[in-house]
Amino acid sequence: MKYCSTCGHPVEQRVPEGDNRHRYVCISCETIHYQNPRIVAGTVPVWQGKILLCRRAIEPRYGYWTLPAGFMENSETTLEAATRETWEEALAEVTVDNLYTIIHVPHIDQVHMFYRATLTSENFGAGEESLETRLFALEDIPWDEISFPTVRRTLELYVEDVQKEHFPVHVDDIRYSMKPQGR
Amino acid sequence: MKYCSTCGHPVEQRVPEGDNRHRYVCISCETIHYQNPRIVAGTVPVWQGKILLCRRAIEPRYGYWTLPAGFMENSETTLEAATRETWEEALAEVTVDNLYTIIHVPHIDQVHMFYRATLTSENFGAGEESLETRLFALEDIPWDEISFPTVRRTLELYVEDVQKEHFPVHVDDIRYSMKPQGR
Repeated sequence: MKYCSTCGHPVEQRVPEGDNRHRYVCISCETIHYQNPRIVAGTVPVWQGKILLCRRAIEPRYGYWTLPAGFMENSETTLEAATRETWEEALAEVTVDNLYTIIHVPHIDQVHMFYRATLTSENFGAGEESLETRLFALEDIPWDEISFPTVRRTLELYVEDVQKEHFPVHVDDIRYSMKPQGR
Repeated sequence: MKYCSTCGHPVEQRVPEGDNRHRYVCISCETIHYQNPRIVAGTVPVWQGKILLCRRAIEPRYGYWTLPAGFMENSETTLEAATRETWEEALAEVTVDNLYTIIHVPHIDQVHMFYRATLTSENFGAGEESLETRLFALEDIPWDEISFPTVRRTLELYVEDVQKEHFPVHVDDIRYSMKPQGR
């Protein structure tokens, strides 16, 4: 951020009065431009015990398999965002079972939230952001070609919870590591 | 938003190629400025069966009682944000028990998340944004002077769940109503 989106003058980084963090502040109109984490919402779409995954047609991680998910938009709920993304990326209609994982990724200022969901029919396809979509039995999940750490963590938890037949809400963090997990 | 924060030229509202929503797009450098919901994180801080509430020293809702909560910052988790806000507003140190409520407020592009928490001692006080803080027995909660609908909903759920001795994660929405609930 270099310019004020309100008046077009340059911004500087300083700690506003009464605050304790550096913010972008306009040198002219003094508007404080706060920056906050974004939510990525998605589903674990299940059909007869198999999970629907999407092979990404866009960067980052082109060609890797992902759960349908994307940035939550203004004016919607995380559940609406999750089902919208499932439709857009997998052309799949789902009913949501429950909120399943909330995974913080603080080094990129994101919170990923996945809902457990059930396909309403065997109809699905590849949306514009997917090369293909496919149902995977749990033993066939392509672990070496998974897109993002939050998708991997959610799938790992799901496979464990299927054994236990119990699907609680999991709150977890993925911290930056010097050995990047492929992103 | 009137100006591009990257180059300072005016922005216009249009649907970028491959998108289906109006976005602010710079007429000069073509940067797309996405806008996304923000997370408010807080706690239900409990000490020996009583809930710690804060009387707001700032607008909106100056003088009303609230649970400690505030906007999540970059580089933190919702749990870290919730405990930070509890410290800043109530000078209270807590241990978090579990994620408790996730309440969407889509008409103001916010998601409020409250954790159940236990004070580590009877020490608390009024931070800069609080006029006073006080422990309330459940039967003494000042229902007529509660700050925001998400705080009210969370407190209502908590009072119910204390009866049931069961505190599941609640996912809920508060939609705009023509009869505003005081905000």
